[in-house]
Amino acid sequence: MRLTVLGTLQEALPAVCQERTVIVLDVLRATTNMVTALEAGALSVLPVRHPAEAIGRRREGCLLAGERECVRIEGFDLGNSPLEFREETVAGKHIIMTTTNGTEAVRLTGPEAAAVLVGCLRNATACAETAAGFGRDIVLVCAGTKGHYSFEDGIGAGLIADRLVRLLGGEAEPDDLAVTLMEAWRQTAPRLTERLLACENGRRLTRLGFAEDVRFCATTDATRVVPLLAGSELIAW
Amino acid sequence: MRLTVLGTLQEALPAVCQERTVIVLDVLRATTNMVTALEAGALSVLPVRHPAEAIGRRREGCLLAGERECVRIEGFDLGNSPLEFREETVAGKHIIMTTTNGTEAVRLTGPEAAAVLVGCLRNATACAETAAGFGRDIVLVCAGTKGHYSFEDGIGAGLIADRLVRLLGGEAEPDDLAVTLMEAWRQTAPRLTERLLACENGRRLTRLGFAEDVRFCATTDATRVVPLLAGSELIAW
Repeated sequence: MRLTVLGTLQEALPAVCQERTVIVLDVLRATTNMVTALEAGALSVLPVRHPAEAIGRRREGCLLAGERECVRIEGFDLGNSPLEFREETVAGKHIIMTTTNGTEAVRLTGPEAAAVLVGCLRNATACAETAAGFGRDIVLVCAGTKGHYSFEDGIGAGLIADRLVRLLGGEAEPDDLAVTLMEAWRQTAPRLTERLLACENGRRLTRLGFAEDVRFCATTDATRVVPLLAGSELIAW
Repeated sequence: MRLTVLGTLQEALPAVCQERTVIVLDVLRATTNMVTALEAGALSVLPVRHPAEAIGRRREGCLLAGERECVRIEGFDLGNSPLEFREETVAGKHIIMTTTNGTEAVRLTGPEAAAVLVGCLRNATACAETAAGFGRDIVLVCAGTKGHYSFEDGIGAGLIADRLVRLLGGEAEPDDLAVTLMEAWRQTAPRLTERLLACENGRRLTRLGFAEDVRFCATTDATRVVPLLAGSELIAW
């Protein structure tokens, strides 16, 4: 089973995703939020491109969530902080979400992939187990930030690749970037929170007052919830 | 001083290299060969695109070197094995070299960069010291393999970035990929040869009978020679 890692969303061309299981990572913070929303009892998360589209699709029982430049969009119910996705707020609701990188990554890989899963540090092992069970080659898509590689997504991909290699043993064929990120993950693991606070997005979020979000996103294997793209919406697998 | 790492040659756009010191890495094997040739007393190494161009520029005192699909080009004096670049063969000679990825990386970044240096594991610390001395922002270009990231180039970039951060202290501003590759380098260092033999190009070279080349390329800080692009030719700095 081949494990391919793409360092940015822009590399997720149709031919690379076709007939494979795609795992999308935007650890700070979109995919962590998707996992957290479904864990807290949201019925679904619909990733959309533009704030206007989110507003246009609002209906009874829906909450709008999203950011631009890390900050909540005006008129939206929720921003892009995982600490907002609490059970009392989101349970039984449909979430419509738009962010700069993470929701785009889910949207763009959906039409070509055999299946799209959403990964982050908090559901890494469950995500690896689910993907391995599908029996297809796996593509880990690091969403990155506006076309650039992001540390936290690479480390998340390294952790999931590490778990996949443990599960699959000699059957796993990680590519060179997967191998590199597994090495980086192993070196980073003992100081994960510190490293996430120090990376580019970690520093940006800390400056904006979201250091607690970074700490939340830096927790590994806190949940078994794995969002799966069904049609255009994510549901808990 | 900003340290940027590009995972493939294809990302080395003019705007990224402009007014910066560029370090090109193609660890298996082109940039290791360039370093080894100059260390063995070659007067210069001229990177060219096509075998026909190399043949057209052959003159007295020149040796042609290069590969396609890892194998020596017909009619050339040398292939792409660093073990061929011995003093008795290359001392006092001009080398004209063409390879699939490494020579292209030097050629393409040359016109825009403030300076182009050639790096590999064998000259990593000397290369970092030279680049730091130039006082400009630094771009490490991993040549990769036909548009894909290669493990050995990433690890080489991680080692050079690690040395730059030690030299520059708080003045160094490594980007997220540089930080990731420094972590991967630190984890890989104790098993460097084994890891290089196991990566995609390492396995390919081993199948073709070049495992000794991989071992040679996996040696760190074996020389102080740093090739510098002067006009169109590389000379020892």
